[in-house]
Amino acid sequence: MNDLAFLFAVHNHQPVGNFPEIFKAAFNDCYRPLLEALAGHPGFRFALHFSGPLWEYMEKKERGCWDLVRELSIRGQVELLGGGFYEPVLSIIPEEDRLGQIRMMNDFLAENFGQRPRGLWLTERVWEPDLPRTLATAGIEFTLLDEEHFHYAGVRDLHTTYITESEGRSLRVFPIDKTLRYDIPFHCLEDVESYLGTIREAGGTAILGDDGEKFGVWPGTHKLVYEDGWLERFLAFVEDRKIRMMSFAEYLDGHPPSGRVYLPPASYEEMMEWVLEPDEQAAFQRLKAGAGPEARRFLRGGFFRDFCRKYPEANHLHKRMIMVSREVRAAGNPGDGLRQVYKGQCNDPYWHGVFGGLYLPHLREAAYGHLLEAEKTTPDPPGWKVLDYDCDGRDELAYRDPTFGLIAKPAAGGTLVEIDYRPWSRNLTDVLSRRREAYHRAAESAGQGSESGKSIHELDKKLPPDAAELMRYDRHPRFSMIDHFFRAGTTPDDFRRVDFGEQGDFVDGAFSFEASGGELRLERRGMVRAGEERVPLVIRKTVATSDGSLRIDIEVENLSGRPLDVTYGSEWNFLAFPHEIELLGADGAALYGRALRFEPSAADAVWTFALRTLSQSEEGFDIIHQGYCLCPVWSLGWAGNGTKRLSVVLKEHNGR
Amino acid sequence: MNDLAFLFAVHNHQPVGNFPEIFKAAFNDCYRPLLEALAGHPGFRFALHFSGPLWEYMEKKERGCWDLVRELSIRGQVELLGGGFYEPVLSIIPEEDRLGQIRMMNDFLAENFGQRPRGLWLTERVWEPDLPRTLATAGIEFTLLDEEHFHYAGVRDLHTTYITESEGRSLRVFPIDKTLRYDIPFHCLEDVESYLGTIREAGGTAILGDDGEKFGVWPGTHKLVYEDGWLERFLAFVEDRKIRMMSFAEYLDGHPPSGRVYLPPASYEEMMEWVLEPDEQAAFQRLKAGAGPEARRFLRGGFFRDFCRKYPEANHLHKRMIMVSREVRAAGNPGDGLRQVYKGQCNDPYWHGVFGGLYLPHLREAAYGHLLEAEKTTPDPPGWKVLDYDCDGRDELAYRDPTFGLIAKPAAGGTLVEIDYRPWSRNLTDVLSRRREAYHRAAESAGQGSESGKSIHELDKKLPPDAAELMRYDRHPRFSMIDHFFRAGTTPDDFRRVDFGEQGDFVDGAFSFEASGGELRLERRGMVRAGEERVPLVIRKTVATSDGSLRIDIEVENLSGRPLDVTYGSEWNFLAFPHEIELLGADGAALYGRALRFEPSAADAVWTFALRTLSQSEEGFDIIHQGYCLCPVWSLGWAGNGTKRLSVVLKEHNGR
Repeated sequence: MNDLAFLFAVHNHQPVGNFPEIFKAAFNDCYRPLLEALAGHPGFRFALHFSGPLWEYMEKKERGCWDLVRELSIRGQVELLGGGFYEPVLSIIPEEDRLGQIRMMNDFLAENFGQRPRGLWLTERVWEPDLPRTLATAGIEFTLLDEEHFHYAGVRDLHTTYITESEGRSLRVFPIDKTLRYDIPFHCLEDVESYLGTIREAGGTAILGDDGEKFGVWPGTHKLVYEDGWLERFLAFVEDRKIRMMSFAEYLDGHPPSGRVYLPPASYEEMMEWVLEPDEQAAFQRLKAGAGPEARRFLRGGFFRDFCRKYPEANHLHKRMIMVSREVRAAGNPGDGLRQVYKGQCNDPYWHGVFGGLYLPHLREAAYGHLLEAEKTTPDPPGWKVLDYDCDGRDELAYRDPTFGLIAKPAAGGTLVEIDYRPWSRNLTDVLSRRREAYHRAAESAGQGSESGKSIHELDKKLPPDAAELMRYDRHPRFSMIDHFFRAGTTPDDFRRVDFGEQGDFVDGAFSFEASGGELRLERRGMVRAGEERVPLVIRKTVATSDGSLRIDIEVENLSGRPLDVTYGSEWNFLAFPHEIELLGADGAALYGRALRFEPSAADAVWTFALRTLSQSEEGFDIIHQGYCLCPVWSLGWAGNGTKRLSVVLKEHNGR
Repeated sequence: MNDLAFLFAVHNHQPVGNFPEIFKAAFNDCYRPLLEALAGHPGFRFALHFSGPLWEYMEKKERGCWDLVRELSIRGQVELLGGGFYEPVLSIIPEEDRLGQIRMMNDFLAENFGQRPRGLWLTERVWEPDLPRTLATAGIEFTLLDEEHFHYAGVRDLHTTYITESEGRSLRVFPIDKTLRYDIPFHCLEDVESYLGTIREAGGTAILGDDGEKFGVWPGTHKLVYEDGWLERFLAFVEDRKIRMMSFAEYLDGHPPSGRVYLPPASYEEMMEWVLEPDEQAAFQRLKAGAGPEARRFLRGGFFRDFCRKYPEANHLHKRMIMVSREVRAAGNPGDGLRQVYKGQCNDPYWHGVFGGLYLPHLREAAYGHLLEAEKTTPDPPGWKVLDYDCDGRDELAYRDPTFGLIAKPAAGGTLVEIDYRPWSRNLTDVLSRRREAYHRAAESAGQGSESGKSIHELDKKLPPDAAELMRYDRHPRFSMIDHFFRAGTTPDDFRRVDFGEQGDFVDGAFSFEASGGELRLERRGMVRAGEERVPLVIRKTVATSDGSLRIDIEVENLSGRPLDVTYGSEWNFLAFPHEIELLGADGAALYGRALRFEPSAADAVWTFALRTLSQSEEGFDIIHQGYCLCPVWSLGWAGNGTKRLSVVLKEHNGR
C-alpha cells in the first residue's frame, strides 16, 4: 500500500479545573504509553494536539513525556497542531480572544518544541463560516472537520481535501473519516486493512483525527490497546504494508485542494442533537430514521450557540465570560487578567452532551474562579451599575465591593443571579437546575420497571432507590432571593419535590428598581391567592452590603384592606458540598467551614434540601450534588393594610 | 382592532447599473404613487427602506418623492430603515466594508431626513450568526428576518420579537409574516381581516416587511393596487378597524423580547433552494414534499456563500471585489475609491434566482466598472504579481498597465480569466457560461412538446425555434486563451454546439509559469490524440503588453519524433453586444466600435458564435446575449519533431 497516504492526528484534552488525579491517570494509562509506542516506530508520522491544560501539566509533572515530544519533533516524526490555548469553542468567544488564544498556542509550541503550527485542532469541531478569516489572521493554514460538515455542503468525496474562505482568507479543510474513527482501535486489523484498501482503490487519502483518550482512558481501552496489543499490531501492520504516513502539512504542500466548499455551522453529528431540547431531539431522530441517504445533505440539528438557549446556566457563564473579557481589555493592562479569562473560556462547562460538562460543579467552579480572578485585575465600578450583561433585552444590575460581587435581575423576579465571595473568587450561587434531558426517557422507563434495552439494565444497577425523585424538574432557574407564597399546609417535602402550588406571581414577575450608592431597591406590586380570592400585595427588597455582610431587607405590604394570612418564603441556592454546610434549623446555616453564615430574621423555619441532578456520562448515569436550597419561611398575618419587615443576611463569620 | 399592533415595512431597491428607464418607470408606477397614497393616511405609520441607488436617483431626479419622504419623516409617519448603502449581501463583503456601508446609510439618512436609523433592512435577509456584533457596532438595534430563520431555531410563536447576540452584542429580530407577505396586496380584505383577527386573538403582533415593488412594479400589480383601488381600500380598512400602526422602534421600546434565539445562516425559503445545484434542488424538493410539518425545523437547503461554488463567474466577481477592497484600503487614501468598491458590492450580479441577477451582463458590467474605477485609485504593481486572488489554493498572476489589466490562471489551462480595458474600466472577458439550471427541466419538456404545466405553456409561447440549442452546456468556464485540439472534420457548428471530441489535455491542464518584467511565460507538456495514438506535445504561451497592445505568442512543439497533423484552436470570449463587433473572417474581429482589434496570425479561420444563455425571470424565460466566442484555428503539420509559432494580438486601433 505504498501508494496510500494516511494522515493520522491525535487530540488530547483535559478541562481546566479537572482533578489532578485524572490528569495523572490519563498520562499513566494513555498519553505516555501512546507516545512511547509511536516513538518505537519512527516511520509512523502523525499529528499531535495537546490542549493547554495538558501542556502546562506535562511541563511540570510529566517531563518524560515532554522530552519525548521534543525528540519526536526533532526527528520530524510528529507534527504539532495548534488550537485555542485553553481549548475554547472559538465561535462563542470574542474575536480578540480567539486570536489571542491561538497565538498563545502558536508561540508556546514554537518556543518549547521549535514548531510553529500550520494546522489547528478545532475545539469540538465547532465550525462557523467566518472562521477562515480568524484562523488565517492567526497564521493557521488548515484544520480538520467531521464528515457531517462536508455532507451539509453537498460534498461526496471525503478522501481528499477542500479549500474554503471568508473575506478572501483561505483555509484548507481535511474531512475526518468516520469509519476510521469507529474502527481504530475497536475493530480488528482485517477490517482496517479492508477499509483502507477501498480508499486506496478509489485513489483517495485516509484521514483520521480523533480523541487520544480512546487509546487508554475510555473504559476498556487500556487493556485493548496495550495489554492485548492492538496498538503494536496496528503499528507493525502499517510498517509491513508500507502505508505512507504523512504529516498534514506535507500533504497540503503536495496536493492542491479538490475543490471549493462553504460549510454551514456544524460539529460532529451527535453534538448537533445534544443541543436540541428533548422533544426536538426525538423528532429529529424520527426524521433521520425515516429518511433515505440523500437526506443527509439537508437534515440538520441545532448548532453550538443553542446551548446558551437550552441551559440558562450555560448562558449565564457565557455572558459573564464575555463581560469579564471586555472589562479586562478595557482596563488596558490585560497581562495575567487575560490569561485568567482564557482559562475561564475552556469549553467543557459551557455545554453538555455525553460527557458531564455543564453538569460538573468543579468545572463550572474553575471557570468562574478564573473569571473572578480576571475581574480582580479591573477597577470596581462605584455602586450599582445598570447593564444588560446577558443580552436578554432587559436591565440587570451589577455591584462589587471587596467582599461581594452581585448581579441582580429585576425583570426575573427581582432575584440575585450571582453572589460572588471575592476573597475566594468563588461564585456561591453557581448551581444547576433540574431539567428534563432526552436521556431521562430511558431512566423513566427504568423507574417503571420496564426492560427495553441494555442501557436501562445498566441503569437499574446504578440508580439508588430514590432516583425517580431526580426526575422532578424545576420550574425556574435556581436563582436566589426568590419570593414564594405557599398554600397553608405546604411541607418542606412538597417544596423539595416541586409539588406545591405557587400562590403569588412574584417568582418570575418583573420588579422595578432604583439604585443609589451601595443600595439597590426592588419593588413589585403583585397578586397573591388567598382562598378563592386574589389580593394585591407589594414586595420591596433592599439589597445592601457593608463590612463583610450582605443584607436583604424585605417588606411585604398587604394592600387588600382586609385580614390576610400567608406563608412567605425567600429561596436561596448555594453551591456548597455536604462537608461545606452546617444546618442550624430556623437560624439558617453556616457555610464553607463556617466562614459565612446565612441568617434569616426570626423565620418560622428554614426549608432545606440538597439539589441533585441526574445526568449522563460515558459510563451511564451520574447523580451529582449541585448545592443546597435554603428557604426561610415566615407565616405572615395582617388584620388590615400594613407592612411586615423581614431580613436575610449573608455575612462573614466575623461580619457585623 | 385597536388592540392589534401592525408593523409595516416597505423595502425598495434597484441595482447599481440598472437602466435609467427602469428607475424612472419604478418611480412612476410604484414608489411615487405608493408614497402619495400612504401620505394621504397620516395615521398609517410605516417603515421605509430605499437602497442607496434609489436614494441617489431620487435626490437628483425625483425631488417630489424626496420632499414627500421628508414631510412624512417630519410628521413622524415614516420610520426610515438603514442598510448597507449600495445593498450588498453583508455576509460576503469584508467586515470593514459592512461597517462602512451601514454607517454611510446612517449618515445619509441623518443628514437628509433627520433620522438616524435604529433598524436595518438586511439585504435579501441573508443572515449569518456573527452579524449582531457588526450591526451593533454600527449602531443598529434591530432587523427583520423571514419565518424560515425562526423555524430553523425551533421558534413557534412568530407574532412577537426575539433577541439574539454575538460576542455579547445584542440585536432584536422581527419575524416577517409569510401569510401577510402573500396576502398583501394579492388577497381580498376579508382574507386580510380574517388573518389579522387570528393574530389578534392569540395576543400577537402583525409584522410585515416586503419588497415595495409588489405595489406597482411586478406584473399586473399597478392595475391591482391603484386602478382597481386595492391600496385605498386597505388603508381605509386599517383606519376603520382602528388597527394600531406602529413603528418598529416604538414597538421595540415598549415590548421586551419574547426570548433568546440563535439563528443559523438562512434567507427566505426560495433563496436556499436556488443556491443548490439542479440535482440537489430536485432531491431537496422531493424531501420537503414527503416530510411532515415537524421537518420544517430540520430541513435546510444551501446558504448564500454557495453561490460562489455554483457559479465560477460569481466567484470571480466576489474574489475580485475582495481583492480590490483590500487594495483600496491598503493604499491608505480610500475616499472615492471606497465608494466605488461599495457600488461594486451591490448584491444583484453576485447571485441568481428568479430575477436575472448574475445572468444580466449590464449588472455584471456595472459591478466590474466600479471595481476597476476603484482599482485605479491604487498604485499599479510593477510586472506580474503572483497571488491566489480566488482562494482556490493555486497561484494566479495579475498584471496592470495603463491599457490592460490581466489575470492569468496557470493551473486552469494556462488561461486568461480577466482582460480589462482600463481606459474604459471594462472587463472585456466578463461572459457567462451556459450551465444547466433547475428550471431548464421545464424548458426541456417543452422542447419535446410535452404539456405538463402552465409554466411550460407560457414557455412555448416565448421560446424561439432554436431554444433547444441554448440547453447545450459548456464543459468549462468561458475563459480566454484556451488551447483546443480538434479532430479533423470538426466544424464551427460542432464547436458552437459543444459537440466535438477534445483531442488534447490542455483545456484544464496545469501550466507551469515564469514571469519576468512585463512578460509571462506559460508552459505545459501534454498529450494529443492522433488517430489511435496519444503523442506528447508542448505548448508555450508568452503573454506581453506594450503600447496599447496585448500579444500572445504561442509555440506548439511536436515531441513525438514522428509526422503529426493536428487542428489547433485558441479560444477567446469577449463581452460584446452585436453592435460592438465586426467579424473579419480569418483576420479576426474589430471590437467596440473598432476601438480594439483581435488579430490572429495567419489562421485558417476564426470560428465565431454568439454566446447566449437561457435563464428565468419573473415573467418566464430570457434568452440573453452574453458575448462572443472567437476561436482562431490553425492546421498544423510536422514531419518530425519541431515547433510551430502562432500569435494572437488584441490591440487598440492605433496600437502597434
